[in-house]
Amino acid sequence: MTTSLSYVHGYSDHEARRLEDQADTLAALLHGGTSYPAGSRVLEVGCGVGAQTVHLVAASPEAEFVAVDISAESLAEARARVTDQTPAARVTWLRADLFQLPFPEASFDHIFVCFVLEHLTAPQRALTTLRRLLKPGGTLTVIEGDHGSAFFHPHSAYARAAIDCQVRLQADAGGNALIGRELYPLLTSAGYTRVTVRPRTVYADNSRPALVGGFTRSTFIGMIAAVRDRAVAAGLTTAADWDRGITDLHRTTDADGTFHYTFFKGEAVRPESD
Amino acid sequence: MTTSLSYVHGYSDHEARRLEDQADTLAALLHGGTSYPAGSRVLEVGCGVGAQTVHLVAASPEAEFVAVDISAESLAEARARVTDQTPAARVTWLRADLFQLPFPEASFDHIFVCFVLEHLTAPQRALTTLRRLLKPGGTLTVIEGDHGSAFFHPHSAYARAAIDCQVRLQADAGGNALIGRELYPLLTSAGYTRVTVRPRTVYADNSRPALVGGFTRSTFIGMIAAVRDRAVAAGLTTAADWDRGITDLHRTTDADGTFHYTFFKGEAVRPESD
Repeated sequence: MTTSLSYVHGYSDHEARRLEDQADTLAALLHGGTSYPAGSRVLEVGCGVGAQTVHLVAASPEAEFVAVDISAESLAEARARVTDQTPAARVTWLRADLFQLPFPEASFDHIFVCFVLEHLTAPQRALTTLRRLLKPGGTLTVIEGDHGSAFFHPHSAYARAAIDCQVRLQADAGGNALIGRELYPLLTSAGYTRVTVRPRTVYADNSRPALVGGFTRSTFIGMIAAVRDRAVAAGLTTAADWDRGITDLHRTTDADGTFHYTFFKGEAVRPESD
Repeated sequence: MTTSLSYVHGYSDHEARRLEDQADTLAALLHGGTSYPAGSRVLEVGCGVGAQTVHLVAASPEAEFVAVDISAESLAEARARVTDQTPAARVTWLRADLFQLPFPEASFDHIFVCFVLEHLTAPQRALTTLRRLLKPGGTLTVIEGDHGSAFFHPHSAYARAAIDCQVRLQADAGGNALIGRELYPLLTSAGYTRVTVRPRTVYADNSRPALVGGFTRSTFIGMIAAVRDRAVAAGLTTAADWDRGITDLHRTTDADGTFHYTFFKGEAVRPESD
């Protein structure tokens, strides 16, 4: 899940400011507790368009970052975004495949991975690969969502089915939109120690309209709505059922609606004896 | 959901101590932030066997409580439990129906309701009734679960179906095991102001074995397993499918399993102008 795709265009100045505030609220939820000491070498894998990188470097202005992505286009956008928002940040940008990173073993003090494992066919192998790039005692931080955590009022079987279409399409592409619940066994089986995973929950109701607009509507529903054509083309739904599902998801953003979603944040250590 | 039913019998001393520790962890999650000033008059509605009452009075030793339940048997058990665990607590015990409480309007500074609305056919009417018993500016605190928030690794359609049987049986009895997500609209439509609802999430994996044993196994799976005969008799499942579901739920308590459940805690105020 890319939490920022919806924020980058198409809104009035006022709306853009409001959503930027909201993006920061979500960033605080996800990034809270993550900061790195001065001089530490930190690898961000799969930085995408830099949505998390800007928060990462802002929280650790004295750390030295290497940000990697497989897409040159995304990397260019990330670089522009970080240069614009945090010009003093120390970031080296690198286009590379996660499984063929050009670093010797034990190159980094810390590694950060956010919304990446969900897209991989071999998330455990990715975590094992990254473990070897950490210095012994170094830490990995990983954040993923889990679409099975989405529930809402009013409940709607159509809305649930639309979400399930997205889960199915991601699975067909080799990914796993339900990976959050698996972080703990993935990290332990990939050879890490001192593994802790904690839920980071978004709950939005009318007492927090910025969260309803910024997360439920723009981020979550926007992400589901984006797969309409693929879901219909794949025969997973009909246009009518799909549209009813999206309408029902929007219904949860009304004054008497509620929406719940859980991210999971894991922290793990490369064993000293590794 | 009665979170303590599983704790009261049938365990070794060591296990009992371990589960008591765990019950306290869950109590801290649910009761955190709830304490009442010296001399304030507090009504607990639907105290049951006193599972929450003991924590409530422990957190507010100088408040004066009235604990109400419709069952004389439960009330006697609650009284014995509180007398045993917190003998200095100031509690008046009363057998009464929530909808026919023998108190004049504006009798209480605070009202506490935990795992009660889920069993009522008219939760909004209950909240309206309770609002009138509060002094203007007085607060209501309400805690409920939501079985739609349960997800786990490994996922199992049989396990999900077993949970759904419990949801269906509770609905057939006039209740709502998915009520947590509805607290916000229920409280606002019942005439309260300054309504805030927040998730209180239990996430258990092998890094917290006491939580796996105390919550996932003893509390949650124990509660689902208890409706086996009713679910089969009602034709909602077969014995074989049910048993597979319970086996699969237990599978989530293995070393590589995970379990997630969300409680919701709401706080609301009777308007000064009410």
